[in-house]
Amino acid sequence: MRIDELDTPAVIIDLDMLEANIVRLQTYLDEHHIANRPHIKTHKIPAIAHKQLQAGAIGVTCQKLGEAEVMAQAGVGDIFLPYNIIGASKLERLMELARTTHLSVTADSPQVVRGLSSASQQAGLTLDVLVECDTGGQRCGVQSPASAADLARLIASAPNLRFGGLMTYPSDPRFDDFVRATRDLLAGDDLRVERVSGGGTPRVWQAHQTRELTEYRAGEYVYGNRRQVQVGSMRVEDCAMQVICTVVSRPTAERGILDGGSKTLTSDPFPDGGHGLILEYPEANIYALSEEHGHVDFAKSAHRPEIGERVTVIPNHCCTVTNLFDEVYGVREGEVEVVWPIEARGLVR
Amino acid sequence: MRIDELDTPAVIIDLDMLEANIVRLQTYLDEHHIANRPHIKTHKIPAIAHKQLQAGAIGVTCQKLGEAEVMAQAGVGDIFLPYNIIGASKLERLMELARTTHLSVTADSPQVVRGLSSASQQAGLTLDVLVECDTGGQRCGVQSPASAADLARLIASAPNLRFGGLMTYPSDPRFDDFVRATRDLLAGDDLRVERVSGGGTPRVWQAHQTRELTEYRAGEYVYGNRRQVQVGSMRVEDCAMQVICTVVSRPTAERGILDGGSKTLTSDPFPDGGHGLILEYPEANIYALSEEHGHVDFAKSAHRPEIGERVTVIPNHCCTVTNLFDEVYGVREGEVEVVWPIEARGLVR
Repeated sequence: MRIDELDTPAVIIDLDMLEANIVRLQTYLDEHHIANRPHIKTHKIPAIAHKQLQAGAIGVTCQKLGEAEVMAQAGVGDIFLPYNIIGASKLERLMELARTTHLSVTADSPQVVRGLSSASQQAGLTLDVLVECDTGGQRCGVQSPASAADLARLIASAPNLRFGGLMTYPSDPRFDDFVRATRDLLAGDDLRVERVSGGGTPRVWQAHQTRELTEYRAGEYVYGNRRQVQVGSMRVEDCAMQVICTVVSRPTAERGILDGGSKTLTSDPFPDGGHGLILEYPEANIYALSEEHGHVDFAKSAHRPEIGERVTVIPNHCCTVTNLFDEVYGVREGEVEVVWPIEARGLVR
Repeated sequence: MRIDELDTPAVIIDLDMLEANIVRLQTYLDEHHIANRPHIKTHKIPAIAHKQLQAGAIGVTCQKLGEAEVMAQAGVGDIFLPYNIIGASKLERLMELARTTHLSVTADSPQVVRGLSSASQQAGLTLDVLVECDTGGQRCGVQSPASAADLARLIASAPNLRFGGLMTYPSDPRFDDFVRATRDLLAGDDLRVERVSGGGTPRVWQAHQTRELTEYRAGEYVYGNRRQVQVGSMRVEDCAMQVICTVVSRPTAERGILDGGSKTLTSDPFPDGGHGLILEYPEANIYALSEEHGHVDFAKSAHRPEIGERVTVIPNHCCTVTNLFDEVYGVREGEVEVVWPIEARGLVR
């Protein structure tokens, strides 16, 4: 089947671009002796995780337990889950997971550490726990090297836990100072900072400037999107995820309506506005989204589309588009080569 | 099972509120002799559609063909699909649907009318087609009563189509002038404007002020959300859809992190900012979302949550939250009474 025969809206993945993106990052991280641990939140597809592993990734990163379960089920043998796992039900699932795969997690509070330790004791296994650090990202994470060292000591002394290292998101050279200060504080405790895990696609090509990093978690590099093009980490020609839409209305000379809206492209914003880049009409502006309509201003386009014409949209944010669809079409030179179910879609628990 | 036992994040629907919302709208529209044709995009669940029909709705509205197929399959006998259906594959599915349910659609261009006529001829059936009008919503729709009348005549003269009336979104009293002018233009053609279909929850309680309306399409009224509360169409106490989240981190005295982010609450914006209302902490501000983290500022809350505490979030926009989850939990007085699969989730084609 050719792309033109797919009903719209449909998400296609250009396989040549996908494979080139995987090789490009692996080559760069290899050069700099940083382990590659790609984040599968972007694609949620085991087959793509396996492509990343075959290219040289040491394991994968998952953001939610449900994603990790899908990856383990599909034979991924090394999973990092940098998330505070809380509550009996999730801890039980976590232990089940730890039995089938090499698993590591994070914690940023004594409460989380105690839960992990208690569950690991009950399961009779040892869990690697890294300390999540807030190095400017202002999300989760301990606020200072002193707190990181305290939590590292708590992990190391907690039954059935092992202190695994330090993690942050996103990472930049500020992490170096944080890591070094924490390491100094732990010097007397015989606690080594084994893994130093950074992440984020926007600054992925500057990863080597954060000297202490031992591994990197990037997600979006595999698909690309309009945001990455805007910050300069990827080119439009690297954007493997494309959303094929049909122009369903041309109510005025300048307005066109696509059959994809916020339930197709997501409302994830873009700094300069707009909800996606239309490859065939780069001057056009998707200025608003209804749930099932994309509102496009073609005023700046010399040529304008007819009703029924198909267009190719690079979305603002690939990871959330992934979470809306049940499958993507892997294409090469216009032909659909594979249909991948998005197996970990919607697994927010 | 009690709500407290559900793993988070989870979407619950308060059944008492849901049923009250259904009755409230039906009573209001009955009083004003306006037919009720609720929009199922909000819930995408056949069981809720049947509750709406049992309360007195004459049929349902769907935004995409896939949604309509699910509703027809579940025994909904009257479906309005106010969307330009284009292309051989969709037209074929539309005809299949028209064989099993009473179906009506819209068009806003001769191209769409020609496609519908040709497919209906081939299928050997007659399709009701309403003209979509742009009465200020600036989405799809013909731009003037003259264009509406022209398209109505084209529909009426096209083989196997029947002119079904006029439709707009959202509707307000401007629609009256549009309808009257179009009716005047069609007076000599022996073409009656049978149905006049308006919609939108924000102005639903003013529907009677648009005197020409014969039917109303409201979606969000059934669940409610923060946006409807803000515009005054619903109260917080009517918001049947609630997202239960857990506080997974308290990195600073003022910051808290929830286990739901844009893949749980969507990025759909709110005029005054923020990504949801936390019922237990109404002064708190969900000021940012990562994909799987909600970033909350508790600075204005006198009491602040512990790690592991569960909170109840009224999302900005219920319709797009529906599209992220595979199921919702129908609850009454804290007990889970029913688990509804969101059968039409993700059906954007």
